Amino acid sequence: MNEEKKRSAAAMTDWATRCLMKQGAAKNVAHAMAEHLVAGDLLGFRTHGLLRLRYNLQALAAGTTRAEGTPQIVQRRGAIELWDAELLSGLYVLPKAVARAMAMAHDYGTGTIVIRRTQHVAALAVYLEQATRAGMLIQMMCSTPAQEVVAPFGGKSACFSPNPFAIGVPTRSQPVLLDMSLSMTAAGKVRTAIAEDRDLPYPALITQDGDYSCDPKTFIAEPPSVLASLGGEKLGYKGTGLNLFSEFWTLALSDYGRADAAAGDSDANTVWLQVVDPTALLAQGAFELQAEQLVAAVKAATPIDPERPVRVPGEGALATRQRQSEEGISYSAATWRQLQWCADYCNEPLP
Amino acid sequence: MNEEKKRSAAAMTDWATRCLMKQGAAKNVAHAMAEHLVAGDLLGFRTHGLLRLRYNLQALAAGTTRAEGTPQIVQRRGAIELWDAELLSGLYVLPKAVARAMAMAHDYGTGTIVIRRTQHVAALAVYLEQATRAGMLIQMMCSTPAQEVVAPFGGKSACFSPNPFAIGVPTRSQPVLLDMSLSMTAAGKVRTAIAEDRDLPYPALITQDGDYSCDPKTFIAEPPSVLASLGGEKLGYKGTGLNLFSEFWTLALSDYGRADAAAGDSDANTVWLQVVDPTALLAQGAFELQAEQLVAAVKAATPIDPERPVRVPGEGALATRQRQSEEGISYSAATWRQLQWCADYCNEPLP
Repeated sequence: MNEEKKRSAAAMTDWATRCLMKQGAAKNVAHAMAEHLVAGDLLGFRTHGLLRLRYNLQALAAGTTRAEGTPQIVQRRGAIELWDAELLSGLYVLPKAVARAMAMAHDYGTGTIVIRRTQHVAALAVYLEQATRAGMLIQMMCSTPAQEVVAPFGGKSACFSPNPFAIGVPTRSQPVLLDMSLSMTAAGKVRTAIAEDRDLPYPALITQDGDYSCDPKTFIAEPPSVLASLGGEKLGYKGTGLNLFSEFWTLALSDYGRADAAAGDSDANTVWLQVVDPTALLAQGAFELQAEQLVAAVKAATPIDPERPVRVPGEGALATRQRQSEEGISYSAATWRQLQWCADYCNEPLP
Repeated sequence: MNEEKKRSAAAMTDWATRCLMKQGAAKNVAHAMAEHLVAGDLLGFRTHGLLRLRYNLQALAAGTTRAEGTPQIVQRRGAIELWDAELLSGLYVLPKAVARAMAMAHDYGTGTIVIRRTQHVAALAVYLEQATRAGMLIQMMCSTPAQEVVAPFGGKSACFSPNPFAIGVPTRSQPVLLDMSLSMTAAGKVRTAIAEDRDLPYPALITQDGDYSCDPKTFIAEPPSVLASLGGEKLGYKGTGLNLFSEFWTLALSDYGRADAAAGDSDANTVWLQVVDPTALLAQGAFELQAEQLVAAVKAATPIDPERPVRVPGEGALATRQRQSEEGISYSAATWRQLQWCADYCNEPLP
């Protein structure tokens, strides 16, 4: 019963689509949601893959994720648009937004969309290749107006959400895919450390005594510790600056801040995404050549550990996807139990 | 002779303008250069103020900074342009680029300019308020294609330049001004620590043995240490990702990478700047209100040290400018000796 399961991405996507439809999602919405959760699994972002199907099914059942419809375009001017997703899933809305930003980049060189009130966006990494496959660069930032778990530098109380930051860049070979948080660690990693009864590998938490701590149990103490901004005890002003960058460009530009979100939509995200078409400036292929040279320079750096060559963001994830596309996606026994719960909940037997 | 000097910004700007004109700079070029160096002094960015006048005078004299002309527009599409500054000073070119980006943002919501081969840009902080005063957001990134002093995560040899990253944001009160590097520290701070015979406050260097070190003398050892990417020993993959963000968006998008720069322009920078007009999306004043609420939340965080309230980026610099605008700019004896050198070199007595 504790064995890892391997299943094809196609089988899992079909199954998850059926489950989501059982909870009321329209077919196109359900398919997009399933596809982008499975895409997270394929890349190895397992905390943002089908492990979150249960959450999405329950949010559909509760009506906190809207089951069908299209995002509302609130305002636009030339190369930028503001959308209100009105609680549609980010898994469904973001691919549409990337496509629209690409069309704007085709016309204006850049295309930008700010989206408020979009439910579960999962891993930003799964939306990047839609742009890079067309030879475009993409940058994404995401925040959560109803969450406060990250402290600013010099503070021991939280004012920021966990804010992921992502870029996707085409090269001559495989794309560069970066998806990282702007805090020292993620709440999920703290909870995993508690479950596994081990310390964090570096002081990522700030206790109510004002100490930077590796002890994950402080996160569930009363009063609890908070996550530190990237940079930590000495350089946290840089992470604070980056968190402000994310929150000004998402929350303030969408006119939907913490005061607005306090009323209810506890999990809804706000996203900034921008696509750049390099052929607006350069001859076809010139960008990819320059990007390849930058990647080559990183990989050519002398490794500190001769056994561990320097890696480029996304390299590991793309290798994981390649392997799992051939062999099937591996699901741990713990994840499979979550999926079994979903199968029972929807009366849709697992493949 | 070791006393600090205080002089008005206007007097120093006039004097520096005359010095720059003596080295051949056209009047408008000289004035812009002087004004933006003094602007750095006013904000307290003293390593990027008139301390760098000597460098600029010598570069004009040597012809490595072009004395007059306008930047070339290489290519454009809608909301984005590629400029080649052809070695004009960034102090002169960047204000023009910000103005152009603002005009594009007025038309398209966003305006983006990528500028290659621009000499000395000094502190990115001095260009931000041109946009924020007009109610617009600005983001800037700068890299130096002929420099390699920052290592990628896992490496002990350098492949990145020191890459500053800046944002300017209008609020209901004073603007937020962030100007930071994407490495653990700047080469200038390492040299200062050597001169003052003290260790760095945190391990910002990677030695050729692969150790993270606080010892600044390793930076001038043979073989020398290199600067670490933001995040350091545990989280340096995040700083590496941000350095790649900077260099893809500057070097690769301008089609002017390290291979192109190797031939000669050792100090020339490449800049990405983007302006967003929030009134493209929101009612007049709505952005500033949301931004003010984000700033208020940061300032309301409980400080670790009750004596040191949490600060917002730019707060200290703007207070320094306010004070120096009233009392005059303070120049240390060491800086004044540099300015005396310039006065003698140009036969323009100091005010």
